[in-house]
Amino acid sequence: MSDEAIAQKAAENLEAIRKNKPLIHNITNYVVMNVTANALLACGASPVMAHASEEVEEMVSLAGALVLNIGTLTPVWVDAMITAGRQANKRDVPIILDPVGSGATRLRTASARRLMDDLSIRVIRGNASEILSLAKEDSQTKGVDSIHRVEEAETVARTLARDLKTTLAITGRVDLVTDGDRILRVSNGHELMGFVTGTGCTATALIGAFLSVDTNPLSATASALAYFGLAGETAASVSKGPGSFQIALLDALYHMTPDRLRNGARIGG
Amino acid sequence: MSDEAIAQKAAENLEAIRKNKPLIHNITNYVVMNVTANALLACGASPVMAHASEEVEEMVSLAGALVLNIGTLTPVWVDAMITAGRQANKRDVPIILDPVGSGATRLRTASARRLMDDLSIRVIRGNASEILSLAKEDSQTKGVDSIHRVEEAETVARTLARDLKTTLAITGRVDLVTDGDRILRVSNGHELMGFVTGTGCTATALIGAFLSVDTNPLSATASALAYFGLAGETAASVSKGPGSFQIALLDALYHMTPDRLRNGARIGG
Amino acid sequence: MSDEAIAQKAAENLEAIRKNKPLIHNITNYVVMNVTANALLACGASPVMAHASEEVEEMVSLAGALVLNIGTLTPVWVDAMITAGRQANKRDVPIILDPVGSGATRLRTASARRLMDDLSIRVIRGNASEILSLAKEDSQTKGVDSIHRVEEAETVARTLARDLKTTLAITGRVDLVTDGDRILRVSNGHELMGFVTGTGCTATALIGAFLSVDTNPLSATASALAYFGLAGETAASVSKGPGSFQIALLDALYHMTPDRLRNGARIGG
Repeated sequence: MSDEAIAQKAAENLEAIRKNKPLIHNITNYVVMNVTANALLACGASPVMAHASEEVEEMVSLAGALVLNIGTLTPVWVDAMITAGRQANKRDVPIILDPVGSGATRLRTASARRLMDDLSIRVIRGNASEILSLAKEDSQTKGVDSIHRVEEAETVARTLARDLKTTLAITGRVDLVTDGDRILRVSNGHELMGFVTGTGCTATALIGAFLSVDTNPLSATASALAYFGLAGETAASVSKGPGSFQIALLDALYHMTPDRLRNGARIGG
Repeated sequence: MSDEAIAQKAAENLEAIRKNKPLIHNITNYVVMNVTANALLACGASPVMAHASEEVEEMVSLAGALVLNIGTLTPVWVDAMITAGRQANKRDVPIILDPVGSGATRLRTASARRLMDDLSIRVIRGNASEILSLAKEDSQTKGVDSIHRVEEAETVARTLARDLKTTLAITGRVDLVTDGDRILRVSNGHELMGFVTGTGCTATALIGAFLSVDTNPLSATASALAYFGLAGETAASVSKGPGSFQIALLDALYHMTPDRLRNGARIGG
Repeated sequence: MSDEAIAQKAAENLEAIRKNKPLIHNITNYVVMNVTANALLACGASPVMAHASEEVEEMVSLAGALVLNIGTLTPVWVDAMITAGRQANKRDVPIILDPVGSGATRLRTASARRLMDDLSIRVIRGNASEILSLAKEDSQTKGVDSIHRVEEAETVARTLARDLKTTLAITGRVDLVTDGDRILRVSNGHELMGFVTGTGCTATALIGAFLSVDTNPLSATASALAYFGLAGETAASVSKGPGSFQIALLDALYHMTPDRLRNGARIGG
């Protein structure tokens, strides 16, 4: 796909979400439940949060995507994620994983690993250190703990995506999205996003919404990140700090039109 | 009561909450804990969130109302709701139930049913599909899953309230409140409310506050819904989208005066 | 320290947080997780929320301070607090405790007591009734349940801090901070803070951040309270109610400069 084709796809994805209002099933952390639900609503999707083992299979069967986020994990929550994820795999509901804090504690790294081993995950989104922590023991990328140049980052990301057999979104100043073969760079966004808790988790949830209408994980992910980053730019232009930014971000997600997204998306191949 | 008498009662209820600052005990879902606490504070009440089986009996004994909400339920939370609810019943603390998602999964429908079976619940608030899912097997309303005309909705609501021996609040574009005998319609509100997570849950919590000062469930519920809806109208007039709306809504709840509520309430018999 | 020296220390503390971005490990209540994370980010710190017994020891080992808050406690969460706290004590990571609702239920009072017995806690912050509930059976302050005059409050606070061998912050219209010997009064703040949920909890989290850069619990606590209160004053001047206040508060925490804090802090010896 050309850059123009992806920008066009972004616009179509947003339009499809607004039209279909897909149910997005989130098993996520306590800190961000409210803001990610609001971001999904502003986008046009229908969020639901449900984590009881007794109901996650039924709930995910109604959903267009499943968002798994280990930000305030306990083993019993990870069990519920596995239960929900297996059912999602059976019904071909796409899964996106946010391995919050993977690499910081053994529980987080092992839980992210367990989710990747037991489930077929369409996209994983994290920052560079979280994503690097996911490398398998025998990976060429194992032990890499920082990346100094863009070219280096791209090589590592591509290798890791191939090893993990998934699409990776490594978000930062410029976001990298790769399926191990092609790489897309998304350069929308604003530095205030780093001063609001849960912006990474919100990006993940929005990718979930885009995956529910776009079977191509590369274009779904890149277009969701462009949408979110572009809304962040709009929000920053009318904000006085991280508090008002957080609010303006929801307003901007709600008011974004497919046209503005097509024109404002900065997705490069 | 005439429409004027109910509008007058709404003003008196708001005044009584501001004066008495009733403690409202919430066992509710993770997504809305912060916003419902803030809405209760803005209203003039004192919110407390407490869900440990070890303390809910003591806590509810200090409370003016108990709000039960199954939005992110697990069986152990439902157990705590039962424990709290039994004590509330003993001490005549009114209970309001929000059966979030009842009908969507068996766990939710069964949990709502269990709460209704084990507790005497003064008011249940939900959207039409949640409320319809509560019908008993032998109810004339069992199997009704959508309602096409207003008259039909009113007949079903009345029958269901009589079957369930409680007061029902079915919220939507126009809210219906019925005790099985009389029906009130509340037509305050704004469509932006549907783009903010937890507005239904907030309505439920506010009904809790009004129940703590008004022993008549019909007028307590209708006046709380008018208060919330009217604040929503005010908020929408100064908002740029769902983010700023959510914030303006708290400001509007806080600044609402009994006089403005009396004049702005649109409650019809 | 003179009042000027403490105001100067406040400015230096804020500067140090912005420079070092200390990780602040919170085991806190569901209601405030989002807002306290945002306040810590606005301040310049790095918040993390983690409560699984399996990971709290590792997480706190990375942290500059540990914030314990029993606002929505269950016994298993208190166990995790003990596990985290023991490791914090081993590694000399300062602990601050917020005994939310202590005195209201036996579970809360007993849990606060258990945390104090098992851990060495550098600072405890609460309102007057919460702090008074912590008195030991044989304390002169046991049974005191309200304080009528400022001098009386100061005597009680000092005695209690000495009994409990910690630094106490009793927040209210004027905040008292005492280590049992010296007393500081902080008179920054605004009454709108009482209409937003979790402002007390946010104060506690910010004290955690200040403790991570200032080994003197008295100056760390007083300067954090001055910073928070002064931001509240700024926020109130641009707010229309508790909703917009909450947002403006985050903006004000973010924009506060060390100079403005030095000049605006009202800390008296």
